[in-house]
Amino acid sequence: MDFKIRAAIKEDCKEIQRMIMELAIYEKMPEQVKISHEELERDGFGQNSYFECLVAEVPEEHKYKAGHTVVGYSLYFYKYSTWKGCVIHIEDLYVMQEFRGNGIGKALLSKVAEVGKKKQCQRLELNVLDWNKPSRDFYAAKGAVDLTESEGWHALRFHGQSLDNLANEAPED
Amino acid sequence: MDFKIRAAIKEDCKEIQRMIMELAIYEKMPEQVKISHEELERDGFGQNSYFECLVAEVPEEHKYKAGHTVVGYSLYFYKYSTWKGCVIHIEDLYVMQEFRGNGIGKALLSKVAEVGKKKQCQRLELNVLDWNKPSRDFYAAKGAVDLTESEGWHALRFHGQSLDNLANEAPED
Repeated sequence: MDFKIRAAIKEDCKEIQRMIMELAIYEKMPEQVKISHEELERDGFGQNSYFECLVAEVPEEHKYKAGHTVVGYSLYFYKYSTWKGCVIHIEDLYVMQEFRGNGIGKALLSKVAEVGKKKQCQRLELNVLDWNKPSRDFYAAKGAVDLTESEGWHALRFHGQSLDNLANEAPED
Repeated sequence: MDFKIRAAIKEDCKEIQRMIMELAIYEKMPEQVKISHEELERDGFGQNSYFECLVAEVPEEHKYKAGHTVVGYSLYFYKYSTWKGCVIHIEDLYVMQEFRGNGIGKALLSKVAEVGKKKQCQRLELNVLDWNKPSRDFYAAKGAVDLTESEGWHALRFHGQSLDNLANEAPED
């Protein structure tokens, strides 16, 4: 199937928001999604850009029954390792179910890797859920190392009340 | 003990690089550190800023035998959640052993939380090693959720040859 990978533009944010929700349903946490397409427009394409995004597009004749031609996306940003410098991080990589098996996911992943290399990043990182075997197999086949298994890294989070408590206890300047 | 938390300046990078190495020794991976203080200056205080940093400073009269007055740091940056928006991420939080037990680590953590809240971040995240019980206990006592345990998130990484392979297979524009 013909498809094209291109940089997302502001006008793609409605379609990206739709796919963010589809991915959250697949990940069994749809109630977690609080982001609107207006917020994506502001946060990715406004004055302070927190992320960049690629989309996969198919020609009109292949469009899905609901009319979508944007059928996949990869949203990424830059982190920093105090050991190795710049790191490119994929927050989401998603292809609509009806369009899987055509190499679109692989193309999105490779394109982000290319972007990262151009920026001198030594690492490309992402997180997967332990029960998501199709994704884990996909990334492992391409050479990803599971840092949680090999080095024992755990991800921690403060949010809600615990984050407020911390912030309220900050020493004065 | 008196101490002050302040934003790092370019001139702190030598001391920060020294503490990055001390932390890596503690984490049993000192051979991984490839960063120089010149690279920290470029990457944090140049045109493209990949990170921000706070340092903890003690008065001259408390300085360590080797003469250090900068005795801790917290290096952080911004990520993006497609569910919740802006996330502040602590890459490193470190206090020299001789200065622990004075609330410096807690002050560094709280100050980053305050910075994140001011930027409208809903989450503060960081990674810890599973065997690093003092750190895990420290963060848990302050209300951190372990996402690897509660939701099953694993961290994956491409680097070296696997990253090169991906980038080389990227479709043309």
